[in-house]
Amino acid sequence: MFYFICDLLGTIAFAISGVLVAMDKKFDLFGVFIIAFVTAVGGGSLRDTLIGDTPVSWMRESAYTITIIGSVVFAVLLQHRLKYLRRSLFLFDTIGIGLYTMVGIEKGLDAGLMPFICVALGVMTASFGGILRDILCNEIPVIFRKEIYATACILGGILYFALLNTSLEEKYAYALGIITVIIIRLLSVRFHITLPDIYSKGVKE
Amino acid sequence: MFYFICDLLGTIAFAISGVLVAMDKKFDLFGVFIIAFVTAVGGGSLRDTLIGDTPVSWMRESAYTITIIGSVVFAVLLQHRLKYLRRSLFLFDTIGIGLYTMVGIEKGLDAGLMPFICVALGVMTASFGGILRDILCNEIPVIFRKEIYATACILGGILYFALLNTSLEEKYAYALGIITVIIIRLLSVRFHITLPDIYSKGVKE
Amino acid sequence: MFYFICDLLGTIAFAISGVLVAMDKKFDLFGVFIIAFVTAVGGGSLRDTLIGDTPVSWMRESAYTITIIGSVVFAVLLQHRLKYLRRSLFLFDTIGIGLYTMVGIEKGLDAGLMPFICVALGVMTASFGGILRDILCNEIPVIFRKEIYATACILGGILYFALLNTSLEEKYAYALGIITVIIIRLLSVRFHITLPDIYSKGVKE
Repeated sequence: MFYFICDLLGTIAFAISGVLVAMDKKFDLFGVFIIAFVTAVGGGSLRDTLIGDTPVSWMRESAYTITIIGSVVFAVLLQHRLKYLRRSLFLFDTIGIGLYTMVGIEKGLDAGLMPFICVALGVMTASFGGILRDILCNEIPVIFRKEIYATACILGGILYFALLNTSLEEKYAYALGIITVIIIRLLSVRFHITLPDIYSKGVKE
Repeated sequence: MFYFICDLLGTIAFAISGVLVAMDKKFDLFGVFIIAFVTAVGGGSLRDTLIGDTPVSWMRESAYTITIIGSVVFAVLLQHRLKYLRRSLFLFDTIGIGLYTMVGIEKGLDAGLMPFICVALGVMTASFGGILRDILCNEIPVIFRKEIYATACILGGILYFALLNTSLEEKYAYALGIITVIIIRLLSVRFHITLPDIYSKGVKE
Repeated sequence: MFYFICDLLGTIAFAISGVLVAMDKKFDLFGVFIIAFVTAVGGGSLRDTLIGDTPVSWMRESAYTITIIGSVVFAVLLQHRLKYLRRSLFLFDTIGIGLYTMVGIEKGLDAGLMPFICVALGVMTASFGGILRDILCNEIPVIFRKEIYATACILGGILYFALLNTSLEEKYAYALGIITVIIIRLLSVRFHITLPDIYSKGVKE
């Protein structure tokens, strides 16, 4: 129940981030809804189809679609006030990433996949919605160029698998995985930590 | 048989719309064919993979591929005359949308999904091919910004489910669903009806 | 074993081609890795999900992921020297295309699909990774406009099916299919052979 609520909070955050990008592009109401929808469920849908766990999650549980519709209506009606909400949004988004990462990892474990493939599924669940959002809006996906994002998911996932090999209960390992993702992301944004620069001087054009 | 012919007519219309966009971009013959193919089968393929109904339809029924190859050859050979055909094309396209919507809904019902998820599948079947076509050509998908398109599919789908709860036979409900999609789309284009503007003055940049 | 080694050589070539494109776009380390990964496994993943053969290949065999990580590390560390490697890269890439084509065809045959659908799967396996790479980098996919690429795959696939109807052993037909793809591609690049121009003078804008 706690997980489900977090999951829906993440869905709200991702949906609203989709609305914000789509409205910047002046899409019509349908376009805004589709971008919100794809941002919220894209990562999980890709994960489910690649694993073969179909029909994908949002088709089996209507709460996702209802949550997204509600988020779009809310965001469109309150478009003037969304700027005051951006801080809370960022927090929701970060919580969403943490949870989506661990949901993806669990799905991979259920399918009997190797730990590092599970971590890849976690990253995919947390990041692919945003990638799709940016492609549909004809932008280069933002996560390819800025911010610690996937790295936080990977580190949280690795910690989770490390903890599974200790005497710690699985549910605490799960919670610590989520918290690790969230804290790394918050710290990296707060202190402008980025990945090491891979471009040597001589190659820059 | 009637449905199958309509389906192939829709395939022809979508394939030719793909040829037109790809030729505007000066793609080579292979590029033109791929865009035509993706436009025609993209929506159905996404639907089938998300439901888990694989191999997807066009792999099991060769008529689709043959129809698409024929349409591409026809469109490339008659490229000078296509402008005279645009009116009929628009009609085919609209018929295709109506039928693809109901095909998607039926697939969802067969998979035991909820009505509003079925409607979403209908919209996806009718619109995703065009979205993919535009992404592959590096354009912002046209349906996010213009015209009543998805809305027609949604209203046709809702009518269909409403009629299922009456004493009307299922096949008439099906036909009325298709006709509703077609008529709403024709009327909206004829009278320039669009979705309500969601952008309040203060937010426009 | 021979096939598996060729497959990994192809993976290396595709991964490095992804690194080169992503570094041109100044993506960060994570972005570069994702592009390399998607270029290398995108075609096979699409094929597997459309057929319904899930979890997709790279989730079941860790050698692919390890090979890609190694290729990315190698390419980033040796970025100054990659220009000297381009010739070998092109050869790897071409070998990869040949092999990926036949792997795709085999997968289709295993799934009981028709020959020409199998050829389509071969083309998809060989080309979709590069298409995804270009879309994620916000470029129009290069194969839609230049070079004999898919055509080589198609001709190799057709030859393979033609040889299956002779008394030739299947494994020789397989090898000849691969070699045909490779030779056609090498010759077409060497002699600047392209597809026939489909644009009649009057239509060019």
